[in-house]
Amino acid sequence: MLFLDLIAKKRDGGRHTPEELAFVARGAAQGLIPDYQLSAWLMAVTCRGMDEAETVALTRAMANSGETLGLGKLGRKKADKHSTGGVGDGVSLALAPLAAACGLAVPMMSGRGLGHTGGTLDKLESIPGWRASLSNDEIRSQLESVGAVVCAAGAGLAPVDRRLYALRDVTATVESVPLIASSIMSKKIAEGTDALVLDVKVGRGAFIKDLARARELASTMVGLGASHGVATVAQLTAMDAPLGRAVGNAIEVNESVDVLKGAGPSDVRELTLALARIMLELVGLSVDPATRLDDGSAYEVYCRMIRAQGGDPDAVLALGAARETIVASESGTVQSIDALAVGRAAWHLGAGRARKEDAVSAGAGVLCLVVTGDRVSAGQPLFELLADDEDHLESGRAAIANALVVGSSSSAPAPLLIERVDS
Amino acid sequence: MLFLDLIAKKRDGGRHTPEELAFVARGAAQGLIPDYQLSAWLMAVTCRGMDEAETVALTRAMANSGETLGLGKLGRKKADKHSTGGVGDGVSLALAPLAAACGLAVPMMSGRGLGHTGGTLDKLESIPGWRASLSNDEIRSQLESVGAVVCAAGAGLAPVDRRLYALRDVTATVESVPLIASSIMSKKIAEGTDALVLDVKVGRGAFIKDLARARELASTMVGLGASHGVATVAQLTAMDAPLGRAVGNAIEVNESVDVLKGAGPSDVRELTLALARIMLELVGLSVDPATRLDDGSAYEVYCRMIRAQGGDPDAVLALGAARETIVASESGTVQSIDALAVGRAAWHLGAGRARKEDAVSAGAGVLCLVVTGDRVSAGQPLFELLADDEDHLESGRAAIANALVVGSSSSAPAPLLIERVDS
Repeated sequence: MLFLDLIAKKRDGGRHTPEELAFVARGAAQGLIPDYQLSAWLMAVTCRGMDEAETVALTRAMANSGETLGLGKLGRKKADKHSTGGVGDGVSLALAPLAAACGLAVPMMSGRGLGHTGGTLDKLESIPGWRASLSNDEIRSQLESVGAVVCAAGAGLAPVDRRLYALRDVTATVESVPLIASSIMSKKIAEGTDALVLDVKVGRGAFIKDLARARELASTMVGLGASHGVATVAQLTAMDAPLGRAVGNAIEVNESVDVLKGAGPSDVRELTLALARIMLELVGLSVDPATRLDDGSAYEVYCRMIRAQGGDPDAVLALGAARETIVASESGTVQSIDALAVGRAAWHLGAGRARKEDAVSAGAGVLCLVVTGDRVSAGQPLFELLADDEDHLESGRAAIANALVVGSSSSAPAPLLIERVDS
Repeated sequence: MLFLDLIAKKRDGGRHTPEELAFVARGAAQGLIPDYQLSAWLMAVTCRGMDEAETVALTRAMANSGETLGLGKLGRKKADKHSTGGVGDGVSLALAPLAAACGLAVPMMSGRGLGHTGGTLDKLESIPGWRASLSNDEIRSQLESVGAVVCAAGAGLAPVDRRLYALRDVTATVESVPLIASSIMSKKIAEGTDALVLDVKVGRGAFIKDLARARELASTMVGLGASHGVATVAQLTAMDAPLGRAVGNAIEVNESVDVLKGAGPSDVRELTLALARIMLELVGLSVDPATRLDDGSAYEVYCRMIRAQGGDPDAVLALGAARETIVASESGTVQSIDALAVGRAAWHLGAGRARKEDAVSAGAGVLCLVVTGDRVSAGQPLFELLADDEDHLESGRAAIANALVVGSSSSAPAPLLIERVDS
């Protein structure tokens, strides 16, 4: 089999056999296929698509391309969550310990942020001493002792995805539904979770802007879960405005701790509970997760989880010293807050990275001081920008200029939970 | 401007502006755009196409990406020819000196073979001492003294094409009409010829198999010539059977010399004259080129051209020592000879290369001993295979097995000259 022939086949709209996709995964994982050929194939897939059978076969080949976590049976059912990426979406930080406090084992392999969306590992790394990389033995042991792990996926887990994802990111082939679906699901299948809830973000701050494509992605992933023995449900959620008030790293950790202590922004709490309920439902546990936020038990698991990975949950996190408050230039009602613009501003302030090898600033970000529907008067603070230096502050200020629209109409904000997609 | 945004634009079917295409050409020529991004863009262009304005702009940007030959005004009008690639197509070897013998200056920048089609430079390099690389000064001086130069394009001529072509070859993006057209025409425009005839091959031995796409390519290139001040005509010619009798390197040189001496296979002579007539017509010279083959003046120019580049035109060229004659297994009429199969056999025998860095055998190839429409009897020789060793002979034998079909019908062979495309 020649990879060049497979590129030509997909270029001409052909359907790949499972054997061909196994060949692609093996060749990509072992480095036998050069980047320039893989990226041509990725673009052909993006332009011509893949059908359900192809997507299932690619996902299986990717999941089988490396090791599995090998968690086997634990004392508790394993459940995980994945978000397709949003602005201010620090839900994982509260959800993992909450689900564990409800009786689940949560092996949450997470990623770093790229572009305007944040990454769970970047956020947790703003906690002094916390480390993202654990061995498989450490993951297993922590799942048994604490019930929740949020850590980096090891290099051996679905290694072909690591290679394809890095290429997709720089070749404008991120948006393909079969490629997104196989990337996400291959890692979750290799991880070996029993149940999975997918938070599929839709809107201008998400990678997927329209509902039809979000539904397509959600049902593709739910189908992939079902065909690989992972009970999977997708929740479509709105990502037009930032989630919560904090968009950054340390400030999102602080917001998550608020939620874990029973407080925090109502939308973050609502989404955290909704996703926890689905995880519990999928493994047949009937616990009301709200009680575990309000009685402090979720926060207690959080502290143990952070300590188990070397972090100090009580440390006061350093925030950016260069700060500026953006105020309203007119009075009225907040019509919209553009999640993409706020995400880009946070990125410019230093919270995100342009290339994989860049470092992020723990203390940079945007605090949203109002939400859609709020009445504001001229001069009232709208955003607080945080950065490590004046240069970053300057470029963040430029990026946020048109993020918030004030007007006279006062319609109710759109619902956060759009719809649920079951298998 | 970010190249990633341009990839995304073409992926989504957008139209590039001239500024964007200039950015692509500059970035590719200067090595600022990595291979994996270029190949994703090439695949997006292959899948989504480019319109006429985009193709014109890309061609201009590619032509401007490096130096031009700077031939300026010579005593004679400059005319060139390009073939899209066929099997046994050694026409350039006779055409360049013939056109010079008719009063033209022929600055023919040629290439090497890849895959199953041969390359003019590989053929000429079977002449002892002949060298393909000339400086711009040498090219100019030889055009003035001899009237014809067949040599390698310098590294500075349309350098972006060199890079794009190498990538297209290994990413299944060779077939795109705008990419083929801009690749060919950018080099001819940078070369600075006044007139150009394009031999667009159609059929199973050509890169383009169907007439509609050949017409599209031909009219695209003719339009590109017109919009850059190069008087251009395309001649569509059949490439179902090999052209002439010889398919290889030294054996094609020998066949070209036969044509230059007024003999040779009738189809090679016919095509050489047809292309020469178009070149002469385009610059307004009324000479009958047939007289220059028959009076020996074209051959005389050939000898001077070969000598000027260090070669010995009188040398007897070494042919492969390992030989085998393939005979007819039944009697009947030759229905067809598959140019692709014969080209692949010559390639397997050693006349072609699999990778750019491979060497070719000068003496290997296939001699076709019959043509379509010939009556043959069982046991009659059909092909003579030539190779440097038994291993190559063996793999050439396997490749040619089903190249020739004998049957009972006796229809006239299809015409060689299909149609002409003017601007």
